[in-house]
Amino acid sequence: MNQYIYGVDIGGTSVKMGLFDEKGDMVEKWEIVTRKEDQGSQILPDIAASIADKNNEKGIGASDILGIGMGVPGPITEDGRVLKCANLGWGIFSVAEEMARLTGVAKVRVGNDANVAALGEQWRGGGRGFLNIVMVTLGTGVGGGIILNGKILTGTNGAAGEIGHIKVNPQETRVCGCGGKGCLEQYSSATGITRRTLELLERGGKPSYFDRFRREEISGKEIFDAYLAKDETGRQVVGEFAAYLGMGLANVAAVIDPDAFVIGGGVSKNGPVVIDVIREEYEKNVMFALKGKEFRLAELGNDAGMYGAVRMILS
Amino acid sequence: MNQYIYGVDIGGTSVKMGLFDEKGDMVEKWEIVTRKEDQGSQILPDIAASIADKNNEKGIGASDILGIGMGVPGPITEDGRVLKCANLGWGIFSVAEEMARLTGVAKVRVGNDANVAALGEQWRGGGRGFLNIVMVTLGTGVGGGIILNGKILTGTNGAAGEIGHIKVNPQETRVCGCGGKGCLEQYSSATGITRRTLELLERGGKPSYFDRFRREEISGKEIFDAYLAKDETGRQVVGEFAAYLGMGLANVAAVIDPDAFVIGGGVSKNGPVVIDVIREEYEKNVMFALKGKEFRLAELGNDAGMYGAVRMILS
Repeated sequence: MNQYIYGVDIGGTSVKMGLFDEKGDMVEKWEIVTRKEDQGSQILPDIAASIADKNNEKGIGASDILGIGMGVPGPITEDGRVLKCANLGWGIFSVAEEMARLTGVAKVRVGNDANVAALGEQWRGGGRGFLNIVMVTLGTGVGGGIILNGKILTGTNGAAGEIGHIKVNPQETRVCGCGGKGCLEQYSSATGITRRTLELLERGGKPSYFDRFRREEISGKEIFDAYLAKDETGRQVVGEFAAYLGMGLANVAAVIDPDAFVIGGGVSKNGPVVIDVIREEYEKNVMFALKGKEFRLAELGNDAGMYGAVRMILS
Repeated sequence: MNQYIYGVDIGGTSVKMGLFDEKGDMVEKWEIVTRKEDQGSQILPDIAASIADKNNEKGIGASDILGIGMGVPGPITEDGRVLKCANLGWGIFSVAEEMARLTGVAKVRVGNDANVAALGEQWRGGGRGFLNIVMVTLGTGVGGGIILNGKILTGTNGAAGEIGHIKVNPQETRVCGCGGKGCLEQYSSATGITRRTLELLERGGKPSYFDRFRREEISGKEIFDAYLAKDETGRQVVGEFAAYLGMGLANVAAVIDPDAFVIGGGVSKNGPVVIDVIREEYEKNVMFALKGKEFRLAELGNDAGMYGAVRMILS
């Protein structure tokens, strides 16, 4: 008899769902809409219904399911309670217990989405072969997840790995989304580098690589292309991106001394150049005992969360 | 039959040695000189001889010894190898194996001295009741040790918890002992605040609390007394000390989200005011999910390392 695991990654607009076999290989994946109305009260029942449909379709019985792993976009305690999830409208409750009740599956494990994606990359992606990694996701914000000895580091309030809110510029006057000032996220996210590029273009009058684009077309790809084309603005923006990120990761290393850093998210799609510029600044900033860490690109893309969710069941 | 553990804390000038009972209570403590000649080759034999003497004195047989725990002032891997210890003249070798050979005691556990002291404070000192703590030692430098789930976080190269070398001021031009610039240690160690005070006094011509002291008498105690006496220089120096340390610890919290911070070392002897100024700046800098952490003063002083060494044997 085959056995299965469901890997579920809840996002603000869609829920990524995957059916995996007992070895952890993906059998099938699909998405459902995240219904945020009524304080997100339909989200878990929708997921349970989708699992029930898939069970029917495949002839999977309750006893064939090893467990359900889930990633949630908010702080989650080790026992699977969400402490508030503004994104989904959720207050404080046990996602694990509720999901077990809705599906009849006893083993439900829940983690923060960034942490769960980090676990997926450590298990099956860019962090393969390392037990201790820091995953950094460069997207709208800067997300982070820390894996120690092959397990998620959750922290007391589920806030471990909040690398985007390390303060890297005490002089900053602009306010970050978290309410602080000078957070890494303000400089090294896709949003941050786009904002900075537009700001510099606003000032300049000189011809630039960016002249070929409308302002609203400019994002991470165009900025790294400009950097590679040796455009002055592109070089400045990527230089600042790397300087703050390299320093931030050097500080992370001084705290936990990991084996490797895995870089993911939209910005990482620009390939090895992203790793190269970050590593150069990391080495400039870090103390001798922490030099020479591995830097890898993430490999699983949007599937990382589902893989990590499954790993929580299998380990 | 009583059983015993030896707790050993190797420092640059003396080795602190303690005999503990099987419950972890200290029976007796003493010190021997750290002989650093010949690349420190006499240090471990001296310790072994001192243990043999104590065994004879107390009538302790080989089978009565549960183990020997040791703290060493350098990076140590999880399996007890030292990776270099400039302080003692040591190169790379297994301290644990060598000590087992010299004493005939099978169970020898070795850790970095700052990490081992952190474990001692978590077990029997200021961190009692918390499983996850960050210990910060404010002395000549700024040392650190991280305890997660009641165990030392060692890191890949034994460099986890090197909190003194978190970069907190990217604008700094002065070089830190580690070769970097702008490390926390440059501002928040006893050395750092003394240097800063003398620098400010050099400039000033105004009457000051410090006028009653010769320059060489000024250290942590005088500086915190000046702060409490509302002296302008004292307030500025303590303000900077706290601003950098509060920001640095906020960044540490964003990485590992601990239960509590324990503050030790010479500077912490100035009492609750030290905690108060650090906590105020921590709260200013940290993101919402990490607010309200506990801050405690260390309680074991120079005995912390021996207690932590014993804890490595008993846990």
